[in-house]
Amino acid sequence: MELWFSERHTPNVKLSIKVEKQLYSGQSDYQRIDIYESKEFGRFLTLDGFMMLTEKDEFIYHEMITHVPMMVHPNPEQVLIIGAGDGGAVRELVKYESVRHIDLVEIDEMVVDVCKKYLPKTACALDDPRLHIHYEDGLKYIRSCEDQYDLIIVDSTDPFGPGEGLFTREFYGSCYKALHKDGIMVNQHESPFYQEDVAAMQRAHKRIVESFPISYVYQAHIPTYPSGHWLFGFASKKYHPVDDLKREAFKDAKLNTRYYNPNLHVGAFSLPTYVEELLRDVE
Amino acid sequence: MELWFSERHTPNVKLSIKVEKQLYSGQSDYQRIDIYESKEFGRFLTLDGFMMLTEKDEFIYHEMITHVPMMVHPNPEQVLIIGAGDGGAVRELVKYESVRHIDLVEIDEMVVDVCKKYLPKTACALDDPRLHIHYEDGLKYIRSCEDQYDLIIVDSTDPFGPGEGLFTREFYGSCYKALHKDGIMVNQHESPFYQEDVAAMQRAHKRIVESFPISYVYQAHIPTYPSGHWLFGFASKKYHPVDDLKREAFKDAKLNTRYYNPNLHVGAFSLPTYVEELLRDVE
Repeated sequence: MELWFSERHTPNVKLSIKVEKQLYSGQSDYQRIDIYESKEFGRFLTLDGFMMLTEKDEFIYHEMITHVPMMVHPNPEQVLIIGAGDGGAVRELVKYESVRHIDLVEIDEMVVDVCKKYLPKTACALDDPRLHIHYEDGLKYIRSCEDQYDLIIVDSTDPFGPGEGLFTREFYGSCYKALHKDGIMVNQHESPFYQEDVAAMQRAHKRIVESFPISYVYQAHIPTYPSGHWLFGFASKKYHPVDDLKREAFKDAKLNTRYYNPNLHVGAFSLPTYVEELLRDVE
Repeated sequence: MELWFSERHTPNVKLSIKVEKQLYSGQSDYQRIDIYESKEFGRFLTLDGFMMLTEKDEFIYHEMITHVPMMVHPNPEQVLIIGAGDGGAVRELVKYESVRHIDLVEIDEMVVDVCKKYLPKTACALDDPRLHIHYEDGLKYIRSCEDQYDLIIVDSTDPFGPGEGLFTREFYGSCYKALHKDGIMVNQHESPFYQEDVAAMQRAHKRIVESFPISYVYQAHIPTYPSGHWLFGFASKKYHPVDDLKREAFKDAKLNTRYYNPNLHVGAFSLPTYVEELLRDVE
């Protein structure tokens, strides 16, 4: 017997992973949640059948969405994370002593519960005393925030289903307002390769450029996401993602990263020509 | 009816591409050769069932294996390509006026014939008057070469089957001998992500480090290769891949690249920490 999980990256491409067994399947108020065990990737989480994270490669996504802004902002104390009920971004954030308060806004409590139970390597810091979890819609939560955060991490799902509101102009405007005057927002920014993802990527970039004076895109290799070529957005009121990199702080912080390092940080902002052109088209 | 091509990236992972039709299937003295037509990737070539190139993403591989060394060497005139019967590296090379002579050593004449017929966008420069094709085993061909080339491009298949000899210590030593005193060798260097590829990657790196005084590895996003995270080796007798980059020459050359640009060139050498560690382990 063979059991395979398949995800369509487009109607014409699919990635399949051999599964040892399904550990959990449930339906929350918002989405279907599944956890599988596999030889190649360890355990992995899917929402509505879309890959969210695997134990083998989630370090790439979580290091890149966290350490890039943390290594630019000179003193990040107040952090807001939207989405990310799996706890991966929190695990990276709590490595910093400078961080005093983290608000995590996750719409789906069941995601947090399931990740705590089945993905302890990712969810291991969800009991950190600095963390405050709010089970709310991120779009609604942020409307009432003003001049409150040094960093906002938008760790959303794709721009349909529960994550849809996190790709709107209103949302990015609210993030701007919620940040201190030198605040930074990063977001998962989809992929430049397949046409469906390109449209979402361009739409997000256009709206962020309209909301923030400084806006750049950086990239990483994430093998279990469509095409393996994934982007993040870096939007800022004051700091430049490369010119303001704190190389010395990285050594002092002793983060034990496996993907991120300061040279890679700089290199990640050097995009392929076709990606630069796709971004320029909507600027 | 649906027709799907699937490739196992490991025994537990497969990438599948929906196929409109199979355009060609043949068996040469060395391998099985297939050409498929697909909506997502255009036409694609497989050898023994392994993906070699697709019309949609081959520009990434061919630009990165060609323009990186060409933008470092100050005056590359004599070039040797081993493998690459598809013509993609040749197409990029002939954009340079400085190139006077290209020897292409391909073991399998049938690959060249099939690519000329079915992949004209890739094979379009195989009639360039500067190109001389030799249907020979690259390992044997290079044994008799001495102080002859400015650049050697090793565009091999994986290190089993016909490409196996192109990953040996003897081969890299012969490349060293075949190069002028300031020559450069680049090679496709496998992937750092899946265990099977890691072993090949480390073995290649170890042998190149033993053969060349300057040896670095750079990366690209190649969606149709296992994990999408692909590496190239840059080995050199004199030039440093980043310090000796000719930024001005890029502007003058008007290459119309879609992936490569000088900033990306620099960024491509900034590797993730786990990849740096894998390489350091065998240095």
